[in-house]
Amino acid sequence: MASKPKATETPASRRRNGRETRSASPKKREQEIIDAAAEIFHRQGYSDTSVQNVADAVGILKGSLYYYIDSKDDLLYRVLLEVHDAAHTILEEVTAMDELSPLEKLDAYVRRHVEYNTRNLTKIAVYYHDYKLLAPERRAEIRRQRKLYEDFVVGLIGEAQQRGEIAADLDPAVLSYCLFGALNSVYTWYRPGGKVSPTQLADTLARFVIAGVRTD
Amino acid sequence: MASKPKATETPASRRRNGRETRSASPKKREQEIIDAAAEIFHRQGYSDTSVQNVADAVGILKGSLYYYIDSKDDLLYRVLLEVHDAAHTILEEVTAMDELSPLEKLDAYVRRHVEYNTRNLTKIAVYYHDYKLLAPERRAEIRRQRKLYEDFVVGLIGEAQQRGEIAADLDPAVLSYCLFGALNSVYTWYRPGGKVSPTQLADTLARFVIAGVRTD
Repeated sequence: MASKPKATETPASRRRNGRETRSASPKKREQEIIDAAAEIFHRQGYSDTSVQNVADAVGILKGSLYYYIDSKDDLLYRVLLEVHDAAHTILEEVTAMDELSPLEKLDAYVRRHVEYNTRNLTKIAVYYHDYKLLAPERRAEIRRQRKLYEDFVVGLIGEAQQRGEIAADLDPAVLSYCLFGALNSVYTWYRPGGKVSPTQLADTLARFVIAGVRTD
Repeated sequence: MASKPKATETPASRRRNGRETRSASPKKREQEIIDAAAEIFHRQGYSDTSVQNVADAVGILKGSLYYYIDSKDDLLYRVLLEVHDAAHTILEEVTAMDELSPLEKLDAYVRRHVEYNTRNLTKIAVYYHDYKLLAPERRAEIRRQRKLYEDFVVGLIGEAQQRGEIAADLDPAVLSYCLFGALNSVYTWYRPGGKVSPTQLADTLARFVIAGVRTD
């Protein structure tokens, strides 16, 4: 993601670029803060976490933390924006794969989505557990961003239906919910370091989901 | 389920039968109490619900409620036991279908599971949101009961693998998690009364899941 092209500028990348004009170190420190916040929210719950807890975990003064964030809500929002930045990057990568059919794009999307989720279990758990605790406007923004990739998947299903690759009698939205149900429950049961690697899991889920939606 | 054979006696059916020796009315009242508890837990949250709230909803004195239950924890446990009683009945029905192949049994299981969940959205939501709030021993009992039907599905997948109907290189447990991910997220997005009926949804999910696990 360090080599993300400037053309795909997002609110978070603009924020990062703003920081970068000062020095490389604040950007690294900001990432440490987001990572620490995710860990602590996950371990002891968002409600039971204070900004002081996060400052202690990073080893900086609470006052210094406020150079990077404005509030605890801000910390949570940054964690969730990072997840959406990654989702956005995946979406752009897959959209750019002009040579692929809609089902092949869906396959590529599922693999990337599952690999990201299995390699970022803590942030994904915080995302699903705590996004409802955000302040209303930010919660609405997260919902809006989530809808972008839900619409992307529904769009691919619709295109595949037009080509006769997915049965036309199935509701694209319902199929997308089936698909996301399988994908987004991964963080609840997957444990890293076991016999199934993130790549193997991504492969199993892609096979499951693509075979599941495809017409026989 | 009213015609459930006596041979399939469960702890809850024994409890109900015990009540039945008094009169039919207490059994009906007990069901009203469980239904009301599920509604209120769902609407205002388990933590913010009192036994008095449930008594008020049913229109009986709190003292009378204690004829049926011992505590708020007991109310939650009864809701979850009802869900597991239904799951157990489905499991027995499908197990008895000797003429079906493992994949056909899995198909029958998915249809019944989804139909039950879509027709009992409130209780299913309480089941997933609140089972962690049960007292430890009861939580362990719910986990044990849940494992029964997870093992049932893993068993069917294993049998289908032996017959070459599911790819042998896939981990049966991982496949079962994919399947349950799709099935058990239904309550989070399905809204009754829309254009997709519970039976249509069960059909879509069965087609999705069976095609998803089946070898091409």
